[in-house]
Amino acid sequence: MFDPITLKLTVDPLILSALKEDITSEDVTTNSVMPEGCQGQVDLICKEDGIICGLQVFARAFELLDENTSIKLFVKDGDEVKKGQLLGTVQGDIRVLLVGERTGLNYLQRMSGIASYTHSIAKLLEGSKVKLLDTRKTTPNNRIFEKYAVRVGGGNNHRYNLTDGVLLKDNHIGAAGSVKKAIAMAKEYAPFVRKIEVEVENLRMVKEAVEAGADIIMLDNMEHSVMKEAVEIIDKRAEIEISGNVTKENISNLVDLGVDYISSGALTHSAPIMDISLKNLHRI
Amino acid sequence: MFDPITLKLTVDPLILSALKEDITSEDVTTNSVMPEGCQGQVDLICKEDGIICGLQVFARAFELLDENTSIKLFVKDGDEVKKGQLLGTVQGDIRVLLVGERTGLNYLQRMSGIASYTHSIAKLLEGSKVKLLDTRKTTPNNRIFEKYAVRVGGGNNHRYNLTDGVLLKDNHIGAAGSVKKAIAMAKEYAPFVRKIEVEVENLRMVKEAVEAGADIIMLDNMEHSVMKEAVEIIDKRAEIEISGNVTKENISNLVDLGVDYISSGALTHSAPIMDISLKNLHRI
Amino acid sequence: MFDPITLKLTVDPLILSALKEDITSEDVTTNSVMPEGCQGQVDLICKEDGIICGLQVFARAFELLDENTSIKLFVKDGDEVKKGQLLGTVQGDIRVLLVGERTGLNYLQRMSGIASYTHSIAKLLEGSKVKLLDTRKTTPNNRIFEKYAVRVGGGNNHRYNLTDGVLLKDNHIGAAGSVKKAIAMAKEYAPFVRKIEVEVENLRMVKEAVEAGADIIMLDNMEHSVMKEAVEIIDKRAEIEISGNVTKENISNLVDLGVDYISSGALTHSAPIMDISLKNLHRI
Amino acid sequence: MFDPITLKLTVDPLILSALKEDITSEDVTTNSVMPEGCQGQVDLICKEDGIICGLQVFARAFELLDENTSIKLFVKDGDEVKKGQLLGTVQGDIRVLLVGERTGLNYLQRMSGIASYTHSIAKLLEGSKVKLLDTRKTTPNNRIFEKYAVRVGGGNNHRYNLTDGVLLKDNHIGAAGSVKKAIAMAKEYAPFVRKIEVEVENLRMVKEAVEAGADIIMLDNMEHSVMKEAVEIIDKRAEIEISGNVTKENISNLVDLGVDYISSGALTHSAPIMDISLKNLHRI
Amino acid sequence: MFDPITLKLTVDPLILSALKEDITSEDVTTNSVMPEGCQGQVDLICKEDGIICGLQVFARAFELLDENTSIKLFVKDGDEVKKGQLLGTVQGDIRVLLVGERTGLNYLQRMSGIASYTHSIAKLLEGSKVKLLDTRKTTPNNRIFEKYAVRVGGGNNHRYNLTDGVLLKDNHIGAAGSVKKAIAMAKEYAPFVRKIEVEVENLRMVKEAVEAGADIIMLDNMEHSVMKEAVEIIDKRAEIEISGNVTKENISNLVDLGVDYISSGALTHSAPIMDISLKNLHRI
Amino acid sequence: MFDPITLKLTVDPLILSALKEDITSEDVTTNSVMPEGCQGQVDLICKEDGIICGLQVFARAFELLDENTSIKLFVKDGDEVKKGQLLGTVQGDIRVLLVGERTGLNYLQRMSGIASYTHSIAKLLEGSKVKLLDTRKTTPNNRIFEKYAVRVGGGNNHRYNLTDGVLLKDNHIGAAGSVKKAIAMAKEYAPFVRKIEVEVENLRMVKEAVEAGADIIMLDNMEHSVMKEAVEIIDKRAEIEISGNVTKENISNLVDLGVDYISSGALTHSAPIMDISLKNLHRI
Repeated sequence: MFDPITLKLTVDPLILSALKEDITSEDVTTNSVMPEGCQGQVDLICKEDGIICGLQVFARAFELLDENTSIKLFVKDGDEVKKGQLLGTVQGDIRVLLVGERTGLNYLQRMSGIASYTHSIAKLLEGSKVKLLDTRKTTPNNRIFEKYAVRVGGGNNHRYNLTDGVLLKDNHIGAAGSVKKAIAMAKEYAPFVRKIEVEVENLRMVKEAVEAGADIIMLDNMEHSVMKEAVEIIDKRAEIEISGNVTKENISNLVDLGVDYISSGALTHSAPIMDISLKNLHRI
Repeated sequence: MFDPITLKLTVDPLILSALKEDITSEDVTTNSVMPEGCQGQVDLICKEDGIICGLQVFARAFELLDENTSIKLFVKDGDEVKKGQLLGTVQGDIRVLLVGERTGLNYLQRMSGIASYTHSIAKLLEGSKVKLLDTRKTTPNNRIFEKYAVRVGGGNNHRYNLTDGVLLKDNHIGAAGSVKKAIAMAKEYAPFVRKIEVEVENLRMVKEAVEAGADIIMLDNMEHSVMKEAVEIIDKRAEIEISGNVTKENISNLVDLGVDYISSGALTHSAPIMDISLKNLHRI
Repeated sequence: MFDPITLKLTVDPLILSALKEDITSEDVTTNSVMPEGCQGQVDLICKEDGIICGLQVFARAFELLDENTSIKLFVKDGDEVKKGQLLGTVQGDIRVLLVGERTGLNYLQRMSGIASYTHSIAKLLEGSKVKLLDTRKTTPNNRIFEKYAVRVGGGNNHRYNLTDGVLLKDNHIGAAGSVKKAIAMAKEYAPFVRKIEVEVENLRMVKEAVEAGADIIMLDNMEHSVMKEAVEIIDKRAEIEISGNVTKENISNLVDLGVDYISSGALTHSAPIMDISLKNLHRI
Repeated sequence: MFDPITLKLTVDPLILSALKEDITSEDVTTNSVMPEGCQGQVDLICKEDGIICGLQVFARAFELLDENTSIKLFVKDGDEVKKGQLLGTVQGDIRVLLVGERTGLNYLQRMSGIASYTHSIAKLLEGSKVKLLDTRKTTPNNRIFEKYAVRVGGGNNHRYNLTDGVLLKDNHIGAAGSVKKAIAMAKEYAPFVRKIEVEVENLRMVKEAVEAGADIIMLDNMEHSVMKEAVEIIDKRAEIEISGNVTKENISNLVDLGVDYISSGALTHSAPIMDISLKNLHRI
Repeated sequence: MFDPITLKLTVDPLILSALKEDITSEDVTTNSVMPEGCQGQVDLICKEDGIICGLQVFARAFELLDENTSIKLFVKDGDEVKKGQLLGTVQGDIRVLLVGERTGLNYLQRMSGIASYTHSIAKLLEGSKVKLLDTRKTTPNNRIFEKYAVRVGGGNNHRYNLTDGVLLKDNHIGAAGSVKKAIAMAKEYAPFVRKIEVEVENLRMVKEAVEAGADIIMLDNMEHSVMKEAVEIIDKRAEIEISGNVTKENISNLVDLGVDYISSGALTHSAPIMDISLKNLHRI
Repeated sequence: MFDPITLKLTVDPLILSALKEDITSEDVTTNSVMPEGCQGQVDLICKEDGIICGLQVFARAFELLDENTSIKLFVKDGDEVKKGQLLGTVQGDIRVLLVGERTGLNYLQRMSGIASYTHSIAKLLEGSKVKLLDTRKTTPNNRIFEKYAVRVGGGNNHRYNLTDGVLLKDNHIGAAGSVKKAIAMAKEYAPFVRKIEVEVENLRMVKEAVEAGADIIMLDNMEHSVMKEAVEIIDKRAEIEISGNVTKENISNLVDLGVDYISSGALTHSAPIMDISLKNLHRI
């Protein structure tokens, strides 16, 4: 769950904006047939196996429309759920149930899709000390939801955005003149609470980075044998991240390299949604 | 392309919000090594075959950061592109190129993914008069981009949101008392420029809807033979939409039914992204 | 009444903005003499006969300043009210009663004025099947209030704005090349849930429009005899709207033409306000 | 004209909000038939005699949609214009001309209506030193436009809102305990640059107010003979404002009383619009 | 205290913005160690003698994060407090106490600093009728807090901003052509509820201003003897303000001049903060 | 200078908000005497010795009001300036020069005050490797300006806010159960690019922190001898920050301790402003 402060300052405004995207002024259909409110209830049903994620966001979609809506949940984020399982119920003004449905489900399905896919990759790393990281390849205006879903699925978060982490890539190194100079400039400029990460492409750069005091070294698209050598050169003087075309097929080969992190953009940009729906709406 | 008014009033604010998601206050890494701006250029390269979509949005991500950025494009939305193809170049302050890259690509990759997937489904309907429709199962705060991508891919748009279309579902019919009453109430309440669409589940509802003057009848999850009968009952007195679990495999069976529209949520909720990247950044 | 969702997403932000227009930082006068709050009550009195409209909006002006304000209403939107009639009471912190008064009344007086004027026109159409429509000639940033007041007064709403309805005028037809081409282009481009309306100026255009499948045909500023002929040509194949200089004097002549709708900009741009005031503020 | 700073900080955001009210995402009709922009021109024609007002606001409606739109004006705010007169031309992307038309005219018609009506009242005061004042009975979210139109029509502005002027009414006096105490409390609390105005209902209050040092005394709904006596009592020790049911018929009787100001809510709440339209749109 | 309306419309949004400045998405530290909320309490302790100010703002910083936070206060704004004194307690979700602390104290310390400094200056004017005024030299986006603190410290407020007061300086006089013309133009243009203040630099200007009917005359950086003469010339026909380099040392010399106001920018731009802290956080 | 992206996304909106604080609707005084714009120029003059800072922000205050304003600067941020020195000129519409003056100077004076004060402290650390850090004790809604001014004055920035740095204080440690557990929980939860800082109060905590792998250890309000011992215990296994009541008087005693950082809240909360003004406005 998001803590109450993050919910209020960051999450709620995004959900509200999504609701407004779906409701320019009113739900014409519902208002045609329901001039007055009446109480009802609907079931939240899972239609696929997976890891559920986003239940609080789902609930907020209704609560932001009407704070008197009551959501009962029988599972919590991170739980494994089964096809056909009753996950919870939503009770309140039927007009609110009808209007909030699509936005609530759009979030829940995507977040559960990401959590489920992340979980399936993270399981391949079980037993090792390697952690699975996400990237900044998230859907625009959905990063806070997607990075949370990665955590729920068993992954860890890389930097949130360009402001809160330092990652020196080839162009930064080029601008600075050398790996060494880039690291020195970053240490001088960045708030001192930042770790300095450097993306390297060959063993020469690995050496230069570790000697210049990089906190984290990212091995980008390297051959397996080269990565092995890089790990030896670094020799625990910096943390190591592997990036680039990580797949379910090749990830197990990476585990024994002795690196600390493997990052994958696919966690957030290519996870299919999990099918979930609202059923059995009835008056109460 | 979005027309200039939609771009200014609706699209730009969303892109700006996405940029702020990625830049809380500054790009610490870039500012560490580039205290002054300098001019550079970078290539936009396609890494997969598909239908390109979102080039204008991609360009705006840079232009909104710095209006002096110059984007040259060698293709246009809707073009088929090939792996390795040079799609365009971005030229401007290198700091802007580095900062706008991720947001620009996040949009471009997703929109091209949706256009490509839609195109692959729409091709299966070629030769028929059946049109492929999207749904409201879009990513929160990305609907305008995703509905546009569906059009670029050869699909058509269903209603944009709850305000601009009337779609009477089972719960609305229940609230009204009958299909007939629901249609009458919608005709009375809704702005008269709206068509009235009714979702039906059996032949009795089909008859009631067509007799009550529904403009569009949606056949929801019906058996093939039942749909056939429904088409005969309606007898061109209303437009017909088929919905529910449409797949590449079964869609060709639906073509000969004589319906007008087939809608699919998967166009927007399950299209994988198309891989595109920025390469060869260099000073000029 | 506005449903609770429209109230929250669309109406409340506009009322809040109006309150801020009247209170940059504080009510200096009230704060001078009332350093502490105290409870009071005030009467809402009608000073003219008419149709009351906007009571919920009036109430929100106070509730948005202080949710503990209690508004009791003895009438509801659409009721005929008489000069001198007690419509309701507002009870709460006297500072809130004093500060919210002007904004609350500014809305209530204008909405009641529109409802009363619309009602006086709509009565002239009683007994016929012709419906009275509003236009987009509304006061900027007040459309949702004014279109609602038209409905309360017995009118119906034309499209809400440029996005949710298609209305092909002479310049659109000119750009397309012909009435027929314009209709075909609109059917191809617009979400399929939109009806296509065409504004025509002569009988040749009427024929072309009805044959091209226009859903609604608007007869713009035509002579009575020409309109009669147009109705015959259309022969119920499309709905018919009359527009242009509709007045209390000439509207009864239009009723027997057999058209479906008559639209009038005056409903929203020229209705005089209805005089209503708050009286007898006292401590309780 | 609004000065450039007021335009940017206050006026433009309101016009933009009005444009968004009319365009949720796009003008579907225009985009159907004009996939590409093309240049055109349209004439601004007056259809009634009156005082023109709001030309800058009219122009901004187009410029905010597209800064390349070029507006040529042949008159300026405050000019008397005649039915049929060509007021100006708008040139630019025809899509922009079509989309901005309604919002631009909605402002121009209302502001010109207020200026014309104010002018007709102000003329009745010509030759006297009495100034005509507006009130806070303005249309919500349109105050800055309406107060400006009053000035253009020859009126003067009363306080802009509750924050920038002190006006002690009966309830404030009641809360303070007496006219004298209310004035003393206002002088103590309000920023010292504020004048203190008191609304009085009888001669006893007039005396108390003038002796307590009120800067302005408002005679509210008094008989003519009582007002005469009040003016003598005040004896130029304070400015005098008359308020309440001022009409074209009775205003000349008020001129010889020797008061400084007459205020009228009708200037902003009941002025009919002035008919103005855009004609002859053509490609160039 | 701010009245509830000012709090809601103006003060709360600024505090919320300050909270967002300190919390981009979440308090990473607190969320690391407290995945669940738990109740706690903390003491607000004064670490310096002074005048306390801003307790309501301090409380809002917590209440805006979580409305269930309970703040108990043992003093009120304007009270003299002593080093070591317990001012109040804050009770609620410990996560909220930790997150709101810095923003709450940043406001409280600054506002108390201003109130304390203002009080120390205002005391030097005790026994005279001279009032101490602030200026517009406030910290950007903090004016409402700082002007309030001046009042709490025993000072009075000059105009709030450029909109709500008229102050003719040398450049305005130059633009108008003369002091007399400037005053006439201001009386004509400004809402009639504004007093007209003129800043003068010599006795010739003093005479011209008083004769032209200035309401307030500001003597800017004049010699003591010249000010004396100016006071005689004005002879109570206008209020008098002294401005420019007022210090604790020279202010007592100014008291006997017989002026009405002395203004000082230092009240808001140079008051040192008052040290206050939260101590003894513990679970309950 | 702020880079162009930070300027656009973060800095400009804050300056604009400050301008709106000073201009609710218009500058009444200026508009009274200058109905038309005219070109003028004014000098920016320093009235005290110090380090100038905020020139870009000063310029933006005018450019945001009118992009045609031209600001010429003869110094740059960080330069030592002298009393009486001409720092630059502002040229443009005189109305813009008058309206932007106060907001521009309010920023420039405060930022220069902080830079000057920081510089005076940082000089005391010259010759050592110790860096001077700021804190989160900044003025609400001014952090980005104040942290920048610290850098210009020769200081370094601690974390920007609660989101982008981990700092475990006593309450966090209490919640976790021990220093060791707190560090472990932070390493697990926080994005891996964050360094983990722990605030310690005694030598036992120092030992526990360094052994648990803290990246930075903050010695809070310790005796000099205890700090010396702490430095030895840490033995370069973590970076060391000293915090608490650092003054000009005692800071030189801290230099020889061998710590890495000294942080001081006074840099931002107690720096007096630097006096700077605009003089010699004249038409051109």
